[in-house]
Amino acid sequence: MQGLMQDFPLVVHRVLEHAARWHGQTPILSRSVEGPLHRTNYATLGRRARALASASERRLGLGLGTVIATMAWNTWRHLEVWYGVMGLGAIVHTLNPRLFESQLSYIINHAEDQWIFIDLSFVPLFEALQDSLPRVKGFVILTDEAHMPASTRLRNPVCYETLLADGDEAHAWPEFDENTACGLCYTSGTTGNPKGVLYSHRSNVLHGLMCSLGDAMALSSRDTVMPVVPMFHANAWSIAFSAPISGAALVMPGPRLDGASLYEMLELGKVSFAAAVPTVWLMLLRHLEQNTSLSLPHLKRVVIGGSACPEAIMRAFVEHHDTDVIHAWGMTEMSPIGSLAVMSRQAAELPPEKWWSLKLKQGRPPFMIDMKITDDDGNNLPHDGKTFGRLKVRGAAVARSYFKGEGQSAFEGDGWFDTGDVATIDDYGYMHITDRAKDVIKSGGEWISSIMIENAALGCEGVQEAAAIGLPHPKWDERPLLVVVRKPGAEITADAVRQHLVGQMAKWWLPDDIVFVDEIPHTATGKISKLDLRQRFRDYRFPGTGS
Amino acid sequence: MQGLMQDFPLVVHRVLEHAARWHGQTPILSRSVEGPLHRTNYATLGRRARALASASERRLGLGLGTVIATMAWNTWRHLEVWYGVMGLGAIVHTLNPRLFESQLSYIINHAEDQWIFIDLSFVPLFEALQDSLPRVKGFVILTDEAHMPASTRLRNPVCYETLLADGDEAHAWPEFDENTACGLCYTSGTTGNPKGVLYSHRSNVLHGLMCSLGDAMALSSRDTVMPVVPMFHANAWSIAFSAPISGAALVMPGPRLDGASLYEMLELGKVSFAAAVPTVWLMLLRHLEQNTSLSLPHLKRVVIGGSACPEAIMRAFVEHHDTDVIHAWGMTEMSPIGSLAVMSRQAAELPPEKWWSLKLKQGRPPFMIDMKITDDDGNNLPHDGKTFGRLKVRGAAVARSYFKGEGQSAFEGDGWFDTGDVATIDDYGYMHITDRAKDVIKSGGEWISSIMIENAALGCEGVQEAAAIGLPHPKWDERPLLVVVRKPGAEITADAVRQHLVGQMAKWWLPDDIVFVDEIPHTATGKISKLDLRQRFRDYRFPGTGS
Repeated sequence: MQGLMQDFPLVVHRVLEHAARWHGQTPILSRSVEGPLHRTNYATLGRRARALASASERRLGLGLGTVIATMAWNTWRHLEVWYGVMGLGAIVHTLNPRLFESQLSYIINHAEDQWIFIDLSFVPLFEALQDSLPRVKGFVILTDEAHMPASTRLRNPVCYETLLADGDEAHAWPEFDENTACGLCYTSGTTGNPKGVLYSHRSNVLHGLMCSLGDAMALSSRDTVMPVVPMFHANAWSIAFSAPISGAALVMPGPRLDGASLYEMLELGKVSFAAAVPTVWLMLLRHLEQNTSLSLPHLKRVVIGGSACPEAIMRAFVEHHDTDVIHAWGMTEMSPIGSLAVMSRQAAELPPEKWWSLKLKQGRPPFMIDMKITDDDGNNLPHDGKTFGRLKVRGAAVARSYFKGEGQSAFEGDGWFDTGDVATIDDYGYMHITDRAKDVIKSGGEWISSIMIENAALGCEGVQEAAAIGLPHPKWDERPLLVVVRKPGAEITADAVRQHLVGQMAKWWLPDDIVFVDEIPHTATGKISKLDLRQRFRDYRFPGTGS
Repeated sequence: MQGLMQDFPLVVHRVLEHAARWHGQTPILSRSVEGPLHRTNYATLGRRARALASASERRLGLGLGTVIATMAWNTWRHLEVWYGVMGLGAIVHTLNPRLFESQLSYIINHAEDQWIFIDLSFVPLFEALQDSLPRVKGFVILTDEAHMPASTRLRNPVCYETLLADGDEAHAWPEFDENTACGLCYTSGTTGNPKGVLYSHRSNVLHGLMCSLGDAMALSSRDTVMPVVPMFHANAWSIAFSAPISGAALVMPGPRLDGASLYEMLELGKVSFAAAVPTVWLMLLRHLEQNTSLSLPHLKRVVIGGSACPEAIMRAFVEHHDTDVIHAWGMTEMSPIGSLAVMSRQAAELPPEKWWSLKLKQGRPPFMIDMKITDDDGNNLPHDGKTFGRLKVRGAAVARSYFKGEGQSAFEGDGWFDTGDVATIDDYGYMHITDRAKDVIKSGGEWISSIMIENAALGCEGVQEAAAIGLPHPKWDERPLLVVVRKPGAEITADAVRQHLVGQMAKWWLPDDIVFVDEIPHTATGKISKLDLRQRFRDYRFPGTGS
């Protein structure tokens, strides 16, 4: 028997309509790409998104299933494009300007983007790139007539404000199924071509609801939220949806993410809640250290994610600025939020330093996410904070496949997505990423975390950088080799590093050998390239294992 | 194009599984119907709900689409029955023990309930009633063997704990569509037979999410929530779902709702958040007044709804106990929450007394509810806080029809549900119920609120009770007649009442006549029966309008 409740499709334009109707006067402050600050509100954003939809439908031919791309910073216009285009049933493919040009061409062609909406700053990039993008019909430049380039080689350049002025602010949104695709974001895979994650209206709305909950971001209409994390990083960690769901005010930092610029926006906007990766927060904290008269009176909470956050950054916020820090973890494939280290009921009863040991982990899953750790055979492992296994997730906003069916191996038949991470889960429910699955060292059937060896080694005086990799061993399958770069002028020896490690880990975790190199290879995004490192040590043999 | 996200049906047993898995040790404290306190947690509740599902499927024949009823107070067992039965795809029909026996028979037969799960206290009621319930197969008594009645005339009496002990705690939930019905609640209509509202899994999960949001109940795992409002009052205002969604601890007050008993549970459970109707809170406040050594150190917030809350109750909580009050409004047809007078961003900037004038209203709709006011022809009316019109709502947890297709007139073709209330909405978005649509007085095309005249009259010394009704008028269609009951011994005159009203309302709102009666008729639930009153004054003519 079916319930007798109203049909209420979870489509993202309902989020905007709610904010426009019930939080209409709530401000949206942006730093524009042209330079000046710009102020608007949800009521106006709603009208302009409808106008953009109407004009894009008529003049650009956008409709159900059309894919367009954006390369834009976080501004009110980027939000208008999202809601206006998604509300047509078309799909917004967000482009990360930090990608290599060859990757950009690949994903734009792979996604079959028909139009690209770009900030002024990216005009030269696409003038150079457009010949490799034969299917792109043209470019909408997110500015007004006064700021349009005097001349451009771009194919079919359209001025955004002129396009929008041609639209109908009373445009009625078309009706379609809530499982309709609305967003596309490619993961920058370390191996192989980037793979697309295709979000649906339903998954984005449910993810926005999930992230608004009390044990997630706990947003309300009294909050002023600054997503420093770009909208091209998987939905700005939900904020493009969760802020209007909650009626929170928005401060959009535009293109300038240096410490001084962020500080200015935090203060001008009286931001109470902000989200960014650790390196961005480090820039802000350095700016505050260099300008000791500055403080953060409005900023109550920050979310830090994207990579594991150093304890020093978290302590600086909490202890020097009375700003709470929420460590979070996610993946593009998870829309992206998977867990947040929010203080749970049980954690609230712990002494402060014990709580800090949990706060530094990647956190707990809110409702609509579930996670588990398993061994290589898929058997569940205990949540004891020690045993580590492959981290698998499922949920309302987790991908079931990549765009065009690529990379199926991560998607298990049993409905769980294999994150490729290795993690522990403690008895308080806090998950801790200990390694990437492909980097974990498998010694005699047991797993050794390469990251934990590296972190221990980095604490040794004279060590600049360290990488632990598993190499073949005749008896134990694999054993750890530690590769170390000395600090300039340091004369540290292998024995000294080994002595430093003893006592910090189980004896059988200790590297079988420690070697020094001048340089460790890195990926384009600055991470250690263990693939290259294993390649370089392909012919290495551990002492005493022959030939 | 469809998104490529996992299939994650919004079914209520996923809520329980989340709480059992990630908030397993979080306590659920109940006052049992047998008397003693009972302590359990979400992990145990999850196991027992699965065991109940398994045993109910095998021994009672419950499955997809079966309707069963419960008549039970708020305890851990009632929660187990809800989740266990709903998780089978069967439907829980909650019975209000305060209904007349004839109404109970009607709705049990109308719903085609197959089994009735009852608290011990209701055994005599059903012994008397069962002969009028030929289709009910038997009764599950929510107790253990030790407390089972020594003998009972009940048809097929089953001991709940014995049934449950026969179940499998590892029972796997069946898969079904999220739009499957899971709950049935009848409205106690003032005219005609009660009508059933059939909730779906999806509507209950979305309603639970909505109510957890920051501008609704703002729940978190640090909260301890006491739903004083019974589970048979439309999902205990969502708390049966929103508390486990948020991982909040639960305190279930069982059958004793007097001030002393509630105070005991608030203190024992360290309740931080509670929900009840005004009369229940009044009993608690009286108990506190009579025992001045008592205080409410843990209680941070209460939700008050079910009927308009007198200002004195709200002030007592806020000013004497430092407990914030959230005035809420809803209907069984809305699952039931429609609006909450939570402080919005704009309201936070108002001076305290201006904020109080908003706080006393019924509040604002969270995301997934929309509302509007219209005139009789369906034209939208302005949100100016003055104009009042028919209040219409739509949303993810709003009914689109009554059970078995009855009472269609409230369900408009355009997707909006006509609440039958008349309301204003102010420019801060706060909705204020001013009357029932059938009681509003229509004078010369303009509307007069009967309730506002009554409230003004009640402030007049010597007036015990007052009712304003619209009666036919040859020139104005209708004009207000004010019917007054004097306080014992009072000698107030019609002129004195009229003088009291002047200045409190527009001149054209003043009643055309004021008459005194010994008694005003009431409905079974204690409200003024305007239907009876209009009937009694059927032959009345206003002074100067002839015959």
